[in-house]
Amino acid sequence: MTQPLIPHRHAPVKLADFDPRHIDGQWNKQTAAERIAENTAISGELAYRLYAENKRSVLLVLQGMDTSGKDGTIRAATTGINPLSFAITAFKQPSVEELEHDFLWRIHKATPARGHIGIFNRSHYEDVLIVRVHKLVPKSVWRGRYEAINGFERHLAANGTTVVKCFLHISKDEQRERLEARLADPTKRWKFAKADLDERKLWDDYQDAYADALTRCNTEHAPWHIIPGDRKWYRNLVVSNLLRETLEKMNPQFPAEEAGLDQIKVV
Amino acid sequence: MTQPLIPHRHAPVKLADFDPRHIDGQWNKQTAAERIAENTAISGELAYRLYAENKRSVLLVLQGMDTSGKDGTIRAATTGINPLSFAITAFKQPSVEELEHDFLWRIHKATPARGHIGIFNRSHYEDVLIVRVHKLVPKSVWRGRYEAINGFERHLAANGTTVVKCFLHISKDEQRERLEARLADPTKRWKFAKADLDERKLWDDYQDAYADALTRCNTEHAPWHIIPGDRKWYRNLVVSNLLRETLEKMNPQFPAEEAGLDQIKVV
Repeated sequence: MTQPLIPHRHAPVKLADFDPRHIDGQWNKQTAAERIAENTAISGELAYRLYAENKRSVLLVLQGMDTSGKDGTIRAATTGINPLSFAITAFKQPSVEELEHDFLWRIHKATPARGHIGIFNRSHYEDVLIVRVHKLVPKSVWRGRYEAINGFERHLAANGTTVVKCFLHISKDEQRERLEARLADPTKRWKFAKADLDERKLWDDYQDAYADALTRCNTEHAPWHIIPGDRKWYRNLVVSNLLRETLEKMNPQFPAEEAGLDQIKVV
Repeated sequence: MTQPLIPHRHAPVKLADFDPRHIDGQWNKQTAAERIAENTAISGELAYRLYAENKRSVLLVLQGMDTSGKDGTIRAATTGINPLSFAITAFKQPSVEELEHDFLWRIHKATPARGHIGIFNRSHYEDVLIVRVHKLVPKSVWRGRYEAINGFERHLAANGTTVVKCFLHISKDEQRERLEARLADPTKRWKFAKADLDERKLWDDYQDAYADALTRCNTEHAPWHIIPGDRKWYRNLVVSNLLRETLEKMNPQFPAEEAGLDQIKVV
């Protein structure tokens, strides 16, 4: 059975309908690794052309619960691509200065320049996720943000940025296993904070907030993808495929040559 | 015969004394590639620890004439390391806003955050290179900048940033060959601008300006390295070695654990 990557529009997303362990096709860890290597080679070529063309850009947005693997996905999907082609921004708790501005101010500053692939590790969606769950602003404020986000992303798309949004969808059991693994591994224990457990208690509230964001901001110009996330290798494969397909569809071209280059003699 | 990587202090650098084709040791393309792969694996591990430690940072500065291979070096030295560990900044012609500030303003903004490796593709040294050669400011202004740079880099070092500066040293003949190669290759021709030939005519002026920067800003807290650059594989090897040695010397450690983590049960 297949499971849509992009949820159907015009109906509320129910995350329970999306299996975090779903696999589409006959993939296994080994064939996925081979395909990812092929993808990175092709994406690397296309990223080089995108940079040479210097007209458009890609914005890959990664969201997901704690331990959903945003860092690991970025690593898997980009390793092998020229690091000059992309710019990664991790959005953490906003600074005092950032809070003095509207919520899209710091986001807009970090959007990719022409020719580049921007990757957001968390994003403006935190302003309808953690902010909503922890009631950091009243409902009257956050409920207007979905429209603001859609308008902002429409603006980016209209200006040559292909926006690809990925929700790394893990189960609550999988999160428990990953938190336990962090605690058990001395090279990972530093990532653990006791506050992670408080966040975990709010699991259902977060899932509701995600479902709303996935419903209200799943636009044609900036679709959401629900990535089955319980198996790391499959999650990496799907995001790597998406990046490759996005670049293939854009089909960037080397720019027209300056006239008379064939006459030039370098002395 | 060996050739020092860091020029001797207390004597003016003469670039003619540094052979761009020099090879130290018994390296060849194949053994160099193997060593680079080993370096990246080790640097990747250490970069992860640097990030976990979250106290110090590395700043790798790359300078060199057109076609000296700054992009290629970055690619070779970083591929395989988690892209979340480093931030690459390419300094181009300053914006109007940047020009309204002192020359270090835009540089300081781009220095690496704690736990990160910052890589500068060109840098504040352009303000004593292109700016000097093209007389964009009077001598009375640029000659004060060497001291300003030394002070700035001392400040960075005192605040936990290990500064590693690399001059990618190529010969004038090698540049001609690389420019010709760009013109001959349809996937590289877009990089060529006729203005590159005007810059090439100023070769000697640039070499003088580089020699001065390499002499006056070769400090203990931020030494210059003269990288033999005519052979790409050797250049990549030397910079990759430097990055590894820098991280090994820093020897970053995982942070002390929050107390009581061993008592925690994830529910």
